Amino acid sequence: MHEFELIKNYFQKLSKKSSSSLNLNDDVFFEKKNKLVVSVDTYIEGNHFINFKKPDLVIKKIIRSSISDLICKGVKPKYYFISASGNKKSFSKKNMLKISKSLNEEQNKYKIFLSGGDTVFSKKISFTITSIGFAKNIVYRNKAKINDDIYVSGNLGDSFLGLLVLKNKIKLNKLLNKYFINHYFMPNIQLELTNHLKKFANTSIDISDGLLADLDKMINSQKLSYKIDLINIPISNNLKKVLDFKRLSKINCISKGDDYQVLFTASKGKREIIKKISSNFGIKVTKIGIIQSINKKSSIVDQKNIKIRVKNKGYFHQF
Amino acid sequence: MHEFELIKNYFQKLSKKSSSSLNLNDDVFFEKKNKLVVSVDTYIEGNHFINFKKPDLVIKKIIRSSISDLICKGVKPKYYFISASGNKKSFSKKNMLKISKSLNEEQNKYKIFLSGGDTVFSKKISFTITSIGFAKNIVYRNKAKINDDIYVSGNLGDSFLGLLVLKNKIKLNKLLNKYFINHYFMPNIQLELTNHLKKFANTSIDISDGLLADLDKMINSQKLSYKIDLINIPISNNLKKVLDFKRLSKINCISKGDDYQVLFTASKGKREIIKKISSNFGIKVTKIGIIQSINKKSSIVDQKNIKIRVKNKGYFHQF
Repeated sequence: MHEFELIKNYFQKLSKKSSSSLNLNDDVFFEKKNKLVVSVDTYIEGNHFINFKKPDLVIKKIIRSSISDLICKGVKPKYYFISASGNKKSFSKKNMLKISKSLNEEQNKYKIFLSGGDTVFSKKISFTITSIGFAKNIVYRNKAKINDDIYVSGNLGDSFLGLLVLKNKIKLNKLLNKYFINHYFMPNIQLELTNHLKKFANTSIDISDGLLADLDKMINSQKLSYKIDLINIPISNNLKKVLDFKRLSKINCISKGDDYQVLFTASKGKREIIKKISSNFGIKVTKIGIIQSINKKSSIVDQKNIKIRVKNKGYFHQF
Repeated sequence: MHEFELIKNYFQKLSKKSSSSLNLNDDVFFEKKNKLVVSVDTYIEGNHFINFKKPDLVIKKIIRSSISDLICKGVKPKYYFISASGNKKSFSKKNMLKISKSLNEEQNKYKIFLSGGDTVFSKKISFTITSIGFAKNIVYRNKAKINDDIYVSGNLGDSFLGLLVLKNKIKLNKLLNKYFINHYFMPNIQLELTNHLKKFANTSIDISDGLLADLDKMINSQKLSYKIDLINIPISNNLKKVLDFKRLSKINCISKGDDYQVLFTASKGKREIIKKISSNFGIKVTKIGIIQSINKKSSIVDQKNIKIRVKNKGYFHQF
């Protein structure tokens, strides 16, 4: 059974039915009265991270992935809790030193504080991270409006390339290897955007599963569809180079997730303010498409406005 | 390395150094400004629960253990988050129905709401529960005063007997088996006490590791010791019967933990109010000892005021 169904079928009816909480239908739990925003996620070796050979980097990826859930809702993360399961080897003194050094760096970078947690011995390594922030309001899912512009922050696809490098599925030069691996472990999440997102975004999500999968999630209970211009999806110069060389398809690379960029929609009237904030604060934000009526099918089009065939949600043929 | 050392050595320096947070030194994280109280705990099959043959009961034990951390600080739990790792068998439709039925019962009993979480597939079954409540203040650890009375709520030891039954290490009649197993899975936690604890308690903790181990933890950074009267430690009539029959020692049975009762201290001047609240609200509270100067060694004494020898923290010889 798919995680989403599991949660939906059995847990959703248990969540508090009130307008102030999100009923497990969003990335975070939000309780207006106490201004509380909470995200809880579990990361398992072999699933959410390949292995634990680089504990210093794995822990950064996990923390960023967790606080990304708050950031994409326009909320500054403040506290985080780590529940770590692992064996003696994974929690050796050497590894613990690396982990705490990394956590210290992340704390300074994102102004967050370790506030508790648990360490438990188990064969398999896994982490559950609880991230907490406070906000009067958040940007919800499923609040897109027809004709909204669709935007994405930063660049997509670098993380997936990093994964290919780590899995030895692609050979690049040393410099590019390092660049992509770093983006896999240390996605360039957009803390600064939390100060502005609520000024213009109607709805938002972070890209963890892949652009199109998360687009679907963002509007999944709305009678809407999207149209995305492939050419406008922002990718790094390094990824551009690799796409040229290696016969990788762009749509494939940007559909694999782990980007932790903010995907949001805003009405056309907000174009100016978005441009201004983007340029004033140096936050890369790119318009990649529009929200449309459900009468039109969701689509990604190429430069000639020809629809790109998409076989599975989140998975695409090479073309 | 022991969990406590792990946390202490590597994580503690990362926690926010401020009077409003507990710096990983308590059962909960408390942030005064937002009145936020958080507990995060991980429960692993074979460690925190024997197996997953009774998912309906295991889930109750886990939820109660988690909210017990808040209750013992005088805080009503309000929201909980489940991060569940398990395989297809553990999360079968049948099991999920049982789990959600149990959660629904716990929600009604303790007025808590499932507010989010995560389900992840993994061979081994584990749960991380985040419990959240709100309070202007809490009862801290390490705030005992010299000459304080030491109290405990409810009865101790029933849960350990349930574990012995489940492990086939003891044979009792059907009725007793059921009684102790029920107390193992469904400890009688003291929600009502959260309305009163702050009126009289100087310091508190919940008994998860065993009375003496948790006594040590409660005052571990204070220059204090305790003296406990074994005879006064409250046990159920059923446990009394079994102790008589089975040559089990009382000190052993009440030192194994999983009781989830509230252990607290209060000054002698509070004896009247404690009695009154205990009787008015039907909360069993028993005075079991006193806090004393570190010049005296911590001790448990029998009826003749003779010290009972304790070999290991939390583990005791039969005698």
